[in-house]
Amino acid sequence: MFSDLINKIQRGERAAVARAITAIENTLPGHEEILAAIYPFRGRAFRIGITGPPGAGKSSLTDKLVTLYRQQHKNVAVIGVDPTSPFTGGALLGDRIRMLSHFDDPGVFIRSMGSRGGHGGLATRTQEVGDVFEAAGFDIILFETVGVGQVELDVVQATDSVVVVLVPESGDEIQMMKAGLMEIGDLFVINKADRADANKLKVTLTNILNSAPQSTGQWRPEVLMTVATTGEGLDPLFKMIGTHLEYIRETGLWQQKMDARYARQVREQVSKRFDNTFWTPQKKQALEDQLSLKPADRINPIDMAGSLFVDG
Amino acid sequence: MFSDLINKIQRGERAAVARAITAIENTLPGHEEILAAIYPFRGRAFRIGITGPPGAGKSSLTDKLVTLYRQQHKNVAVIGVDPTSPFTGGALLGDRIRMLSHFDDPGVFIRSMGSRGGHGGLATRTQEVGDVFEAAGFDIILFETVGVGQVELDVVQATDSVVVVLVPESGDEIQMMKAGLMEIGDLFVINKADRADANKLKVTLTNILNSAPQSTGQWRPEVLMTVATTGEGLDPLFKMIGTHLEYIRETGLWQQKMDARYARQVREQVSKRFDNTFWTPQKKQALEDQLSLKPADRINPIDMAGSLFVDG
Repeated sequence: MFSDLINKIQRGERAAVARAITAIENTLPGHEEILAAIYPFRGRAFRIGITGPPGAGKSSLTDKLVTLYRQQHKNVAVIGVDPTSPFTGGALLGDRIRMLSHFDDPGVFIRSMGSRGGHGGLATRTQEVGDVFEAAGFDIILFETVGVGQVELDVVQATDSVVVVLVPESGDEIQMMKAGLMEIGDLFVINKADRADANKLKVTLTNILNSAPQSTGQWRPEVLMTVATTGEGLDPLFKMIGTHLEYIRETGLWQQKMDARYARQVREQVSKRFDNTFWTPQKKQALEDQLSLKPADRINPIDMAGSLFVDG
Repeated sequence: MFSDLINKIQRGERAAVARAITAIENTLPGHEEILAAIYPFRGRAFRIGITGPPGAGKSSLTDKLVTLYRQQHKNVAVIGVDPTSPFTGGALLGDRIRMLSHFDDPGVFIRSMGSRGGHGGLATRTQEVGDVFEAAGFDIILFETVGVGQVELDVVQATDSVVVVLVPESGDEIQMMKAGLMEIGDLFVINKADRADANKLKVTLTNILNSAPQSTGQWRPEVLMTVATTGEGLDPLFKMIGTHLEYIRETGLWQQKMDARYARQVREQVSKRFDNTFWTPQKKQALEDQLSLKPADRINPIDMAGSLFVDG
C-alpha cells in the first residue's frame, strides 16, 4: 500500500500528491516515511517565491506566470502560504480567489497551506511540500505568500528565486525596510504600474538597491514594472526569472541553497523526534501540577525544565 | 557578583536591566540563571502590545500613551520588536525614531529587540524581556511591533492587551484579514483619523468585528479614532486600555494568560537544553559529511536524523 502511494506520487497522480501533502502539513502518521521514500526522486524543479503586501496583485501575477510556463509545456504547482491563526489554526486571511483560469488544467496543481499547524518550522514544511511536487515531476513550483513578516522570510529560505511584488503606494513600506529588501528579493516588481507614482517608486527602489554594497559578479536585483491584469510587462518578468535561474545554476548558488535545505530538514527532524519522545504523560502531568499552584509557589520555569530531564 | 546583578535589577538600576536583557536576547552564558533568579520577583506589570502596518503612527501613539502613564506616575518600559534578518541577524527595518520626548525621563526605559537571534521562539524571548522589566518594578510594559506577520502573532501571545493601529487607507488589509482581526486585537485604533475615509473604515471594521460569534460577557473589541500627532482621541484610548485590563483581571483571563506563558517558557527551555546537549561536534561533523556528498548519495534527511540518535 505504501509503495503504491510512492509510485503514484512519482507518476504525478493528483490524489496521491494531495494525500502526501496533507500528511506532511498535519504531521500525520506515515508522513516521515513518505519524505524518506521520495528523497531519491529529486527532480530539477525550480522553486519561486512570490511575495508582497496584501492587495499588490500577487495572485494575478502568479496566474499570468503560470500561463507563460504552460506555453513552454512546464508542469506548474502553485502553493499559497497564508498566515495561520496560532489560536484556532484557521487561516488568518479571508477567502482567496486563486487562479480560476487554470483550475481544470491537468498540468497545473493549486494548493493552499497554512503557516502554522503541524510540527516544526514553516521553512521546512514549505520545503517538504516542494519535495513532493518535485518527486511528482513538476518543473516549476510557485509559492505565493503575503507580507513582510516571518512567514515571508521562512518561504524565502525554501525557494530558489524570490519575486517581491509592490504597488506604487508601497513607498512607506519600502522606506521602512530598506536594508532588508535585498535579502528578501531577487527580483522586484512594481505591479499596477499604470497608477500614479509608479516611476517615482521605481527610482526610490532602484536607489535603495544600488546603495547596497556589492561584489563583482553578484546578482543585482532588477526592478520591473507590470500591470498583471492586462499582462503588460509580464514577458520581461518571465525572462528575468529565467535569467536568475541561470545565474544561480552557474554560480553554484543553487546547490548551496539545496544543501542548506537538507541540513535544516535534518535539524528539524531531530527536534521533532526529541519532542515526540520526551513529553511523556508523566512529564505533561508534572507541568500541569505546577500550573495548578499559585504562581508564587511554582518552581521557576528554568529549574522546572531541568527537573523534567532528571526525573526521566 | 551574580546576586549583586539581581539586586540591582530589583532596584531598577538601568545598567543592570540592560545587561540582563542583552543576555536574554543573545542567550549569553548566565541568562538562564538570571531568569530563574528573577522569577520570584513577579510584579503586577501590565503588558500591552501596539501593532499595525508600517506608517500607521504606532510610535507617535506609543509616545502619547507613555506621557499619559507618566502623568499617573507609572514607570513605563517601551520595547520595539523589529523583524530581524534571518541571514545577517540585523534589523530588517531602517532606523526608527522613537520617543525622543521621553529619552531623558528616568521613569521610562526604551529598548529595541530583534525578532530573531538567540535561541527559541520570539514569544518566549519577548515574554522573558518583560519578566526582567517586571522584576525591575516597571508598571507598564509596551511592546511595539510592525506587521501582520508571525512576529505580530508571537508578540500577541506575550502580552495582556493588544492595540491594533490602522490608518484610513488600511481598508484592503482589513478585508484580507477579516476573521483574524478579532484574534489579534482587543482594541482597534484608526489613527490619522482626520484623513478621508476614516469613518468608512470605522463602519467596515465595526461590521467585521460585530459579525464574529460572541458569547455573553465576552470582551467586544472597540474601534477608536485618534490623531496621534495632535493627541486627539488619546484620552478615550487610554481609558479603554484600562477598561480592558479590568476586564481580564475580573474574568480570570489575565491569570490564564500568565499560566500559558509559564507553560510555554518551560517547554522552550526543554527544547533549548536538548539542542545544546544533542549537537556534539561529532554529530555536527556527521551532518557535514553528508553535505560533502552529492545529493543523490546522501542518506535521506529522515533516516539521517534517526542515525544521529542511534550513534550516541
